[in-house]
Amino acid sequence: MDYQTPQFFHVMQYADSADGDTIDMVSGNPDWEPPSAIREGLHEYADGDADEFQYPPSDGLAALREEIAARRNVDPDRVIVTNGTGEANYLGMARALDSDRGDGVVLIDPVYPYYPGKASMLGGETRLVAAAHDGGLDTDATCNAISDNTALVVLNTPNNPTGAVYDLDAVEAVVETAADHDALVVVDEVYDHFDFSGDFESALTLDADNVIVTSGVSKSMAITGFRVGYAVFPPALIESAKTRHMLVNVTTSRPAQQAVYEAYRETTPDYYAAARDRLQSRIETFTAALDAAGADYTTPDGAFYVLAQFEDFPGTMQNVKTLIDEVGVAGMPGATFGTAREDWLRFALVTPRVEEAAERLTDYFAD
Amino acid sequence: MDYQTPQFFHVMQYADSADGDTIDMVSGNPDWEPPSAIREGLHEYADGDADEFQYPPSDGLAALREEIAARRNVDPDRVIVTNGTGEANYLGMARALDSDRGDGVVLIDPVYPYYPGKASMLGGETRLVAAAHDGGLDTDATCNAISDNTALVVLNTPNNPTGAVYDLDAVEAVVETAADHDALVVVDEVYDHFDFSGDFESALTLDADNVIVTSGVSKSMAITGFRVGYAVFPPALIESAKTRHMLVNVTTSRPAQQAVYEAYRETTPDYYAAARDRLQSRIETFTAALDAAGADYTTPDGAFYVLAQFEDFPGTMQNVKTLIDEVGVAGMPGATFGTAREDWLRFALVTPRVEEAAERLTDYFAD
Repeated sequence: MDYQTPQFFHVMQYADSADGDTIDMVSGNPDWEPPSAIREGLHEYADGDADEFQYPPSDGLAALREEIAARRNVDPDRVIVTNGTGEANYLGMARALDSDRGDGVVLIDPVYPYYPGKASMLGGETRLVAAAHDGGLDTDATCNAISDNTALVVLNTPNNPTGAVYDLDAVEAVVETAADHDALVVVDEVYDHFDFSGDFESALTLDADNVIVTSGVSKSMAITGFRVGYAVFPPALIESAKTRHMLVNVTTSRPAQQAVYEAYRETTPDYYAAARDRLQSRIETFTAALDAAGADYTTPDGAFYVLAQFEDFPGTMQNVKTLIDEVGVAGMPGATFGTAREDWLRFALVTPRVEEAAERLTDYFAD
Repeated sequence: MDYQTPQFFHVMQYADSADGDTIDMVSGNPDWEPPSAIREGLHEYADGDADEFQYPPSDGLAALREEIAARRNVDPDRVIVTNGTGEANYLGMARALDSDRGDGVVLIDPVYPYYPGKASMLGGETRLVAAAHDGGLDTDATCNAISDNTALVVLNTPNNPTGAVYDLDAVEAVVETAADHDALVVVDEVYDHFDFSGDFESALTLDADNVIVTSGVSKSMAITGFRVGYAVFPPALIESAKTRHMLVNVTTSRPAQQAVYEAYRETTPDYYAAARDRLQSRIETFTAALDAAGADYTTPDGAFYVLAQFEDFPGTMQNVKTLIDEVGVAGMPGATFGTAREDWLRFALVTPRVEEAAERLTDYFAD
């Protein structure tokens, strides 16, 4: 496993060249409208003074940083606006691996493939720890995997691909064990607006000095192409992270920052609630089809993916292609996400055609 | 010397808190209007389909990459659209230092401070080679500094801060010597639209397999805040650079990419010519004042900076503050740019108040 896109790319390319009509359940792009303030914010920015087209502060527009800080209840000095959550994770992981903490990286399997890719690029040695059967943290196994050579643990909650929402107690146990071994914990909360359980609590509430929380608006505002994310660092770790951000990117794109700032200010809670309702309804439709097909699966508590296992139909690339050819549904092979769920398939629910996909899968597997 | 912004920040902060009116000759932000197609392109994008708000390809919108490739006369597969020229330089430098080429980095002094900052972050060991007196490449000294431990040489032409435009023959000699030692050469051509000599030739014309050319539209389109740049890699080096780009940034901001694509298509040569004419007139005004003040300087052949040395007034931070307090002109201390021109001051000409600054300096120094 190297990194994610070649696998995605390979599946999408195959689907595009297939004869029939294929429903895309591969990509993680929201399929709904962004908040209207995003469009309005861009229009307003486009008519602004020429000096607003020049460098914003390296760590982001002050008003945007303050808005994020207020929402996350942290000091604005702890926030860096990043080129999406992707850069935020890179900065957090680099902060751990650039120090003399060792080179061990503990990741949870199934794993979002960018994490091991980044770890490897940064000189880290990845150790995968299997998640619990329901996709939640296996706290004991995770804590046992942390040693003095561990520099970094990366957690993702709500989780892609399992849909688990981690208990804050479990996260705290990992954070404390990591602290005992002088390791940092990056908690990627990019799906924080897609919690169906009502139980999600941010790791920022732990107020721990070894926790870096990352997030962004790619998913919550349905603008994956804008690249607006952020990292919240502990005060003692922020300055060198800002230096790296500056040396890599100087700063991030200002039209997108300005539009997101406007959207933070103008968007009401109904917008986010509507997206959650839409996804919950799709989850119900899709898991009913999985029941009908006799598949094993976990109902996601958050994010927008379902991992499923069909009897006698392991989630190999070959079977992914069979589903495209014979069913017209494209999913991702489990091996993309590590070894723990190699036999499973991941389906993304960010398509208006979930019901149709559910029917196709039921027809195929329930025969 | 760590990296640029703290010094800039320090000077600007001092200028902002000064009692009098200070003319900013510190920052490198163009002070003129971007092409009208930038504003129009943003408006058009803001009204587009929601799916245009999602991830573009990691290496950039295909149409934008093809436009850049056509302008640079290279295969589109060699182009990565980056988060400004800053990320392009980072990717090029990382490509050299991530290999087993050694850790030596040869930079030209005076030096744009981001280069040694990036080299240090990437584990490189910087060796500074003094430029010729006119700011051009000292070919012999540069080639002699390249050894088997050299992984990378970074050149910048037209040059910030000297204003030199390197002879292509000199660049070729460095590239060939680097090739003999298995080293890569990153040539930063971000000021390529600001060549007043008519002699600038891109290093891409060398068609060398160890040359990475970087550039962007921050300066040429007066949109430093948009963060649209690019790197052109040799075919054998592009794939791993794309991987790093994906792992660090996923991709770059799509509204900015789309607006720049429109501006490439719609902007006529007069736009760029007008910017050059404006700068040439400012150079004449400013260098006349330096003559009147009895200062030493080199008339820039490109870019938009002038390095000057006043008699008995070395370019220290203390004297920079004196100029702010007593003259109302803010420049940058020479030590920001290495050791070769520590006694000099750099003035950026991207302010409409060049004439006023020239008068103030003449009054102060010509007494």
